[in-house]
Amino acid sequence: MERMEAQFAFLKEIDKEKEIIRQTYLASGSRKEGDAEHAWHLALMTLLLGEYANEEIDVLKTMSMVLIHDLVEIDAGDTYAYDEQGKTTQREREVAAADRIFGLLPEDQGKKLRALWDEFEARETPEAKFARTMDCVQPLMLNHATEGRSWKEHGVKVSQVMGRNARTAEGSQALWDYAKATMIDPHVGNELKDE
Amino acid sequence: MERMEAQFAFLKEIDKEKEIIRQTYLASGSRKEGDAEHAWHLALMTLLLGEYANEEIDVLKTMSMVLIHDLVEIDAGDTYAYDEQGKTTQREREVAAADRIFGLLPEDQGKKLRALWDEFEARETPEAKFARTMDCVQPLMLNHATEGRSWKEHGVKVSQVMGRNARTAEGSQALWDYAKATMIDPHVGNELKDE
Repeated sequence: MERMEAQFAFLKEIDKEKEIIRQTYLASGSRKEGDAEHAWHLALMTLLLGEYANEEIDVLKTMSMVLIHDLVEIDAGDTYAYDEQGKTTQREREVAAADRIFGLLPEDQGKKLRALWDEFEARETPEAKFARTMDCVQPLMLNHATEGRSWKEHGVKVSQVMGRNARTAEGSQALWDYAKATMIDPHVGNELKDE
Repeated sequence: MERMEAQFAFLKEIDKEKEIIRQTYLASGSRKEGDAEHAWHLALMTLLLGEYANEEIDVLKTMSMVLIHDLVEIDAGDTYAYDEQGKTTQREREVAAADRIFGLLPEDQGKKLRALWDEFEARETPEAKFARTMDCVQPLMLNHATEGRSWKEHGVKVSQVMGRNARTAEGSQALWDYAKATMIDPHVGNELKDE
């Protein structure tokens, strides 16, 4: 009973992730995307695109990783990929959040989810590399669908997008090649300033 | 290349699920919940609460099922659990939606996801029964957190909630017992009219 109470306390707490707003617009352009919607999208991308991973991945593990990867933002907030100042304190804020949020769970499950988040952050295993590829390709897909709207609003340069995606191919060369050709290149010199 | 194009066409199309609004409020009460957020929540519930399933479940299969179970609402819209008129045409609208939406995928993946959705609808396997339990318990959790707000707004009676949950124990007796005692019973005669 105590175990189930802790699990539901965690499940209620993470409801807050739905209210963390990202900088990326929905494909329709009607509004910006929330963190939980983003995580849902990554999980279905993992299910359907896992076949393109450079190294074989455990799909359940990778889906679990993408579903929880942004929970820390409940405390730490969303740090925009091109917010250089925010990024200097991001790691510290997110580790404190992980301690608190995963700490709500029964100890065994809290440790398991924390290990998954640490693995995502370290970006070393095939699953973590692929999860990161999903996390980078999904906003490219939405930015492309909205004619680079969030890039335009923030004055993002192509060099920043390429820097952000310097390691996207580590999870899947095929997906990176496709994303670059169809979701970035058409915007260079247009919505993406080339210097 | 053609395969990847079909996969991304599907992944862009399902972005619309984020804009389908349910009748349940977020735990904070700030706004109603979207379908994609709901599906994300069910997937994490499955990961953490799968241990209470009456029969052993394949967690990856069950998570996949809850992640896709509402995609048909992109065309068919959300039918509120207590909308008796809407429910008379729900099945027909949803089957047509499944044909179109899963039909966007490469044939093998479209068939696989369609089979998962059919399995969820049929509610016969351990995975489908557990997925349905998640789908019923999650709004109970949010209704409880908001002091029965959507029940109050729609004048829902306790007999309707019990009817809606007549089969919730099929997926997990333990979770149903807990949900009834902590999320329904406290509201009977208060937010939930008892006749």
